[in-house]
Amino acid sequence: MRKSIAVDMDNVIADIESHFLSTCEKEYGLKLDRELLKGKPEADAFPKDVIRKLLYTPGFFRSAPVMTGSQDALKNLMEDFDVYIVSAAMQFPHSLPEKFEWLAEHFPFIHWKYIIFCGDKSKVNTEFMVDDHVKNLDAFKGKPILYTASHNLNIMRHTRADDWDAVIKIVRTKN
Amino acid sequence: MRKSIAVDMDNVIADIESHFLSTCEKEYGLKLDRELLKGKPEADAFPKDVIRKLLYTPGFFRSAPVMTGSQDALKNLMEDFDVYIVSAAMQFPHSLPEKFEWLAEHFPFIHWKYIIFCGDKSKVNTEFMVDDHVKNLDAFKGKPILYTASHNLNIMRHTRADDWDAVIKIVRTKN
Repeated sequence: MRKSIAVDMDNVIADIESHFLSTCEKEYGLKLDRELLKGKPEADAFPKDVIRKLLYTPGFFRSAPVMTGSQDALKNLMEDFDVYIVSAAMQFPHSLPEKFEWLAEHFPFIHWKYIIFCGDKSKVNTEFMVDDHVKNLDAFKGKPILYTASHNLNIMRHTRADDWDAVIKIVRTKN
Repeated sequence: MRKSIAVDMDNVIADIESHFLSTCEKEYGLKLDRELLKGKPEADAFPKDVIRKLLYTPGFFRSAPVMTGSQDALKNLMEDFDVYIVSAAMQFPHSLPEKFEWLAEHFPFIHWKYIIFCGDKSKVNTEFMVDDHVKNLDAFKGKPILYTASHNLNIMRHTRADDWDAVIKIVRTKN
């Protein structure tokens, strides 16, 4: 039986960190140094009022860039695994159709049957989970893979993947 | 540890069957007899072109009536269980914000952390699942409860609940 992989969206297949940085500069003239974000929790890394505003701005999620390598990597993994997109989207309900449309544009090979939008991920039961947030991985019962983002650089308790090539290697080795 | 219950929306907490019947009559002058729906798969019970049109009509899900007894029953169950709303909403992506708003209006006591919109439910891992569709219950690894709807009257392989009082009794007995 094919094993299944839960793949997060923000900071995993959608490059939200780069999108924050470029949008902060474009919309607010705020040039933030990516180096200074390293190891900081997301809530402390960006000016709170700006980040809240961006997260609630219509179109923000829809216009996010695709994470390098993620499209080819998912195609590769889908040859042998059931790949589910699992995004904690409920806190920003306006993002629900945006995220669906974004997936349809950038990942048209993911059928809607394999999309899950949830509040938290503790009831999602797959064999692997690729996520940048430890709170999701800590509660996960399968094999967790921490996708590297600035905010999680100090986390040492999960297998880490710095890019999509690393995810493929880990999944295919641990399978 | 508190056990968890996945609760479906359409035909379980939202009375979609009644909504179909009344909307068919109001919008298309089609007066359908509920008796004739009994035991028929949904796809055969309503005129296909009408049902497809309704399912894709903006506002259809948003204006659905609440299933009798469901609000009080969920409040009751939430005293002792983690209640998750789990709706297969991805086939109709325009319904995503409608379903979120509908829940916020009629079930404001359900926190967004307990909402899951998915394509299929096979990766949702709770102890109980209340659903009107056997395809969801057949794949479920916990204790399934078939919520009675016209289209599932001939199904005998799952514990059946005819109303929300019955769901409460089954959950509290099987716990």
